Amino acid sequence: MRTVAWYQGRVRMVDQRRIPHSLEFLDFDEYHQVAQAIQEMVVRGAPAIGAAGALGLALAAQNSTATTREGLVQDVERAAKELRAARPTAVNLSWGLDRLLAVIRDARLQTPGEMREAILQEALQLVEEDVIINQRMGRFGAALIPDGATILHHCNTGGLAAVDYGTALGVIRTAHEEGKRIHVLVDETRPRLQGARLTAWELMQWGIPMTLIVDNAAASMMQQGKVTLVAVGADRIAANGDTANKIGTYMLAVLAASHQLPFYVVAPTSTIDLNLPTGREIPIEERDPREVTYIENMPIGPEGVRVANPAFDVTPARYISAIVTEEGVVRPPYEDHLREAVLKARQKRT
Amino acid sequence: MRTVAWYQGRVRMVDQRRIPHSLEFLDFDEYHQVAQAIQEMVVRGAPAIGAAGALGLALAAQNSTATTREGLVQDVERAAKELRAARPTAVNLSWGLDRLLAVIRDARLQTPGEMREAILQEALQLVEEDVIINQRMGRFGAALIPDGATILHHCNTGGLAAVDYGTALGVIRTAHEEGKRIHVLVDETRPRLQGARLTAWELMQWGIPMTLIVDNAAASMMQQGKVTLVAVGADRIAANGDTANKIGTYMLAVLAASHQLPFYVVAPTSTIDLNLPTGREIPIEERDPREVTYIENMPIGPEGVRVANPAFDVTPARYISAIVTEEGVVRPPYEDHLREAVLKARQKRT
Repeated sequence: MRTVAWYQGRVRMVDQRRIPHSLEFLDFDEYHQVAQAIQEMVVRGAPAIGAAGALGLALAAQNSTATTREGLVQDVERAAKELRAARPTAVNLSWGLDRLLAVIRDARLQTPGEMREAILQEALQLVEEDVIINQRMGRFGAALIPDGATILHHCNTGGLAAVDYGTALGVIRTAHEEGKRIHVLVDETRPRLQGARLTAWELMQWGIPMTLIVDNAAASMMQQGKVTLVAVGADRIAANGDTANKIGTYMLAVLAASHQLPFYVVAPTSTIDLNLPTGREIPIEERDPREVTYIENMPIGPEGVRVANPAFDVTPARYISAIVTEEGVVRPPYEDHLREAVLKARQKRT
Repeated sequence: MRTVAWYQGRVRMVDQRRIPHSLEFLDFDEYHQVAQAIQEMVVRGAPAIGAAGALGLALAAQNSTATTREGLVQDVERAAKELRAARPTAVNLSWGLDRLLAVIRDARLQTPGEMREAILQEALQLVEEDVIINQRMGRFGAALIPDGATILHHCNTGGLAAVDYGTALGVIRTAHEEGKRIHVLVDETRPRLQGARLTAWELMQWGIPMTLIVDNAAASMMQQGKVTLVAVGADRIAANGDTANKIGTYMLAVLAASHQLPFYVVAPTSTIDLNLPTGREIPIEERDPREVTYIENMPIGPEGVRVANPAFDVTPARYISAIVTEEGVVRPPYEDHLREAVLKARQKRT
């Protein structure tokens, strides 16, 4: 199953807001709708929104009525601006758009028809590569998972967070497929409950033993010796290794350190932003207070209560034992080793 | 407003499951109902369930048809056993019951009528004392709150967690009444959402500035320098200061330590269990998985998912900067100073 795909000239997505209650697909024939779907979290997860943004931009190119090279570039750039603004933290969105913009600006392409075809092919290739990249991360990361491990996991980093397979959950899946006996402690991940809704659903489908807990219980599980390691995904990794990820990740990193547990980040090189020296420069999205005060349409707090709802936090690199990429397991010093991984990945594409 | 009270020969409670949506009272004319109300968390909070248990036992005595001293003692002891089993972690329940059992076993009371009257008077006194004790803790604790402080608070420890006024929230309320400019960061406190439902409601009523956050956001707030100190209540404090409290408390204690923030526990001496040398001996209640997988009657996780739902965790004493009791602010070494506080409180009653 593909979380996002190009299907009969349109962008198709699993509607992740409906899982686990039902599995529904939505088709979009307009890039504005794709931007809105990213904003409203029909699709979420850094690699998945990278792919969704790229397909949205390909859609904009197909739909453009421009008859000149310049006209098409203008239309596509306008669409890229709107798609890029849909969510600020995960850099994969910008990364995917920039990769497609580089194609469309390629002077060798002369006609709008050639350009439309080239941008669509690049988007489709990016989507296919994502699956392969995830499987590569899975193999590299699985080497870090000992037999008998209990892995504490935050948010959702499975097939639903990528085109398919997943990042941190991809590692867990590979370890399971390699025959390791593992157990996953699934943080429910308030406010959007990606753990309870998406990760639990995926692990049950894959037949991987798991236990759902509230986020408040993670520390107690570590204290009782019930956790072997922590594995999470990432939305943006600065050049020094500081990592923005779902709110609560920093909490787990501090707790892991204080319980002497390994803390692993699993993310493709497309999540690494070499333009930002440290995590301090990563923009953190503040989302609608209703995500906290309502569960679906049911109010839980008092009317009019003031809320802070940061969607992400930043974990300083010193808390991260290793970062698993498709180019291998990256360890400190991150400044050097992350740059090497990004350059290696870029060279493969050129 | 009294959270629990004796009203026209019955036990009256605020139904805390309905707050903040409505303020409803329930009257119980049978001690079994009181035990059930404690179990189902109609009433919760260590001091409040201590008072509710005592009133429930007084109710059992009033309703007993025993015509002999021995018959009444038997009936009351049977009721005490059932009430005690309603919830295992908070020691205040046992403390209240034991205090009433000591009265009814007093050989000076001869007739069942005298005994019924004595047990009711003791229960009513325990209830009234609770309010005074909370106000005393408020004054002692407020001295620890600097002007301009932002206090991170977990679960609910307000008037609703006691007969009235509150423990940690009582301290916050006193600091506010003393004119200190304070702000409260309210953890929503999954799974039962006592922060979002009860604490936010109480603080809004008292006019104390507050911001509601998900439990996952607490660490990030500390990292950003937005927290001055952490204040929580307690369900049971072992002789060495190890403290059982709502799940997530241990997490906050570790985070506070790693951010060099004071971590205060506010609890009456009735919460201190000198019979238990350390926190390892405190029984931790495991509650219904539905508390995690459903919000009211709405399912959030996949059908049949495996859940761990410990209601409490234990914070080792080394993480606790001070314990505020009605006998003053207790600091390490806790073994000596907690015992002194308990003995001082007992002497006042005799």
